[in-house]
Amino acid sequence: MTQIHNFGAGPTGLPLAVRERLADALKVPLDHAPSLLEVSHRGARFLEVAARLRAGLRTLLGLGDSHELLLMSGGAQLQFALLPMNLASTGTAAYLESGHWSKTAIAQARAVSRVAIVGSEAERGFTALPSLGPIPADAAYLHYCGNETIHGVQFPAPPGSDATIPLVADLSSEIFSRPYPFERLAVVYASAQKNLGIPGLTVVAVRRDLLERVPHSLPTILSYRSWAEADSMPNTPATAAWIATTEMVEWIQREGGLTAMAARNTAKATLLYDCLDRHDCFEVPVAREARSQMNVVFRLKDRAREPEFLKAANGAGLLGLEGHRAVGGIRVSLYNAVELASVQVLVAFLEAYAREGARAS
Amino acid sequence: MTQIHNFGAGPTGLPLAVRERLADALKVPLDHAPSLLEVSHRGARFLEVAARLRAGLRTLLGLGDSHELLLMSGGAQLQFALLPMNLASTGTAAYLESGHWSKTAIAQARAVSRVAIVGSEAERGFTALPSLGPIPADAAYLHYCGNETIHGVQFPAPPGSDATIPLVADLSSEIFSRPYPFERLAVVYASAQKNLGIPGLTVVAVRRDLLERVPHSLPTILSYRSWAEADSMPNTPATAAWIATTEMVEWIQREGGLTAMAARNTAKATLLYDCLDRHDCFEVPVAREARSQMNVVFRLKDRAREPEFLKAANGAGLLGLEGHRAVGGIRVSLYNAVELASVQVLVAFLEAYAREGARAS
Repeated sequence: MTQIHNFGAGPTGLPLAVRERLADALKVPLDHAPSLLEVSHRGARFLEVAARLRAGLRTLLGLGDSHELLLMSGGAQLQFALLPMNLASTGTAAYLESGHWSKTAIAQARAVSRVAIVGSEAERGFTALPSLGPIPADAAYLHYCGNETIHGVQFPAPPGSDATIPLVADLSSEIFSRPYPFERLAVVYASAQKNLGIPGLTVVAVRRDLLERVPHSLPTILSYRSWAEADSMPNTPATAAWIATTEMVEWIQREGGLTAMAARNTAKATLLYDCLDRHDCFEVPVAREARSQMNVVFRLKDRAREPEFLKAANGAGLLGLEGHRAVGGIRVSLYNAVELASVQVLVAFLEAYAREGARAS
Repeated sequence: MTQIHNFGAGPTGLPLAVRERLADALKVPLDHAPSLLEVSHRGARFLEVAARLRAGLRTLLGLGDSHELLLMSGGAQLQFALLPMNLASTGTAAYLESGHWSKTAIAQARAVSRVAIVGSEAERGFTALPSLGPIPADAAYLHYCGNETIHGVQFPAPPGSDATIPLVADLSSEIFSRPYPFERLAVVYASAQKNLGIPGLTVVAVRRDLLERVPHSLPTILSYRSWAEADSMPNTPATAAWIATTEMVEWIQREGGLTAMAARNTAKATLLYDCLDRHDCFEVPVAREARSQMNVVFRLKDRAREPEFLKAANGAGLLGLEGHRAVGGIRVSLYNAVELASVQVLVAFLEAYAREGARAS
C-alpha cells in the first residue's frame, strides 16, 4: 500500500496525535452520554476546552493583557470586512498588496472604507515583496498578509518596522510556524484551517486601546467590542473547530513550541528549495528573499508536462500538489503538520523526475 | 451505570447513528491518508459531501428553483444583521416580537435599518403569541422567529397568511421537526446546532427575486448575492459542520422524513405537557396554543425546590434541564434526536416527584 503524504493548501493535514485526540473527542459512548459536540457551550465540560484553548493561544502569542483575544467564525475573509468596519471608520485603511489574499482584503475594505495601497507587486505578478511607500496621515492602520498561499510569497518579518501606525497582520497561513514579534502587531488574525486545526474558528488578537475606535452603530454581532464583552460567545461557537485548535496549540507546545516549529519548517523548506534550485527543469518564480516557507510554488520548465507530473505524484502518494487554479503550476504546502520525512519522499520524487528529464532531453 | 438522556437546548444531542457516522468521517487511517477534515473543500471528496448536503436540504425544504440555498456560517445572529443589510436597505424591516430571539434580531436590525415592531408579547413576558398589527407600507419583509427556545413559544403556522409581504422565518430551533409550508417563506434560515447537527453551519434559503435588492455596495463576504454566485464557497466552509448536517438530513430521510419527525415530536411533547398539566406542582407559563413542541418550559409551584429538583434529575441521568439563565426554571428540549423513551423516563421522574410532593404536603 502506498504511503500517503498530504501537501494540501487547506484544509490541511493534522498531526496524527491531533487526529487521534479529535476522534477521541467525538467518540460515541454506548449509553447515550453526550459527546463533547453535544453539550452546552456554556457548560463546564466545554468551558474547560475553551479555557485550554485561550491559555494555549495566549502562551504561543506571548501577548499579555495588552491584547484582547477574540475567537470568531467566518474565516479570514469576514475579517477583511470587519477590520475596516471596526477600526477605520474615521480614517484611511492602508494596505500592502503582496498577492491574492491581500488583494482580496483590499477589495472587501473598499466597500466600507477609504483605502490606500501603500506598496504593491501586482505589476510584477507578485513574485517579490512590495516595498512600503508613504502612508497617508489619516491612516487608521497598515495591513499586510504575512504569507500569501497562492503566490508563495512571505514577509520574513513584519514590514515597516519604524512606523508608529497600528500594524494589522493576516497570518492565517503562517501563524505559529516560527517565533514571531507578535508584540509589534496591533491586530493579528488567522483562520484555523492551515496551522491551527480545522475550518470554523478565526483567532483575532486586537490591542485593547483600538476597541475604543469601534463605532457604537455597528450591529453587535459585527463589533469587536461586543465580541470582547461577550467573551467570544455572543452565540454558539463552532465547537468542533475550537476543540481541534485546542489540540493543535497543545501539540505545538508538547513538540517544543515555536522554536521547534521553526527548526522543522526551515529544514523542510530548505530541503525542497535546494532541490528545486539545483535542477534547471524546475522554476521557482518568487525572489529568494520573498520565498514562503509554508507554500512553495514552482513550475516545470516544460509547462506542458505539469499535468502528467501531478498525476505521477498523486500516484506516488504525494497529494495536494496542484497549484491554485488562479495561477496553475505546482504548490507544496509545508504547514506545521507536514513531516520532514514527507518532504524527503517528495524530494526523492523530484530528483527522479530531474534525472529522467535529463535522459529524455 | 445510569442511562443518560440529553435534553440540552443546544448544541444538542445527535442521533446515535449520526454520531457513529461522524466519528467514522473523522477516523484516523494509519497510513497518514487524509481524513475528510484534511482535504480541500474544492476537491472531489468533500464536494461529494456538499452535493449530498444540498440535495438532502432541498428535498426536506421541498423548494424548487425559486429559492437559492446558501450555506453560511456565523449562526443565526449573523443573519440578524445580514438580513436587513441585504434586504431592507430601502424600506422598513417589520418584526414580530415573540421572545428572546426575535427581540435580539430586532436589536441587530435597528443598527442597520428602520425597524417596525408589528406585534409583541413583551409586556406579558412572552407567554402567548403576538397578534399581527398593521404593517408599514414600505415594509421590506416581515420577520418572525418560529420557535423561541428560551420562552418555549412556537408559532403553529407562519403568521400573517394573507400578507403579500415577503415572510422571513428564523427556524433555527424547529426546522425539520415537522412538515412546514416552506413555499410560503421568502427567506428561511436556521443555525445547525439544534435539529441540523453541530454548530458552524447556517442554512439560508432565499427567494431568488429578493437577491436583486442586495446593495452592490456591501462587502461581498456579507452579500447574499455574492454567496449565491460563489455557490456558498467564497471561502473555506466549516467542513465538520457540513459533514454533520449531511448525516442529519440523510438520517431524517431514512427515518421517514418530516411526517415521521412530526409524529415522534408530537408524541413526545404531548406525553410531557399532559404530565405537567395533570399535577398542580408544575406550572407551564405558556398559553396552550403557543406552546413549543421543541422546548417545553415549566416551573415548580414551589420555586425554592427547583435547584434540588434539577440536581436530582441530573443524578438520575436526565441532563440539560436547567432553564435559560435569563428566565430560570426548567426547560426540556425535545429536538429530533431526543427519543420517546427518554421522555418516558423523564415523565416517570416527574410523576414520582408529584407523588412525593403530595406526601410531603
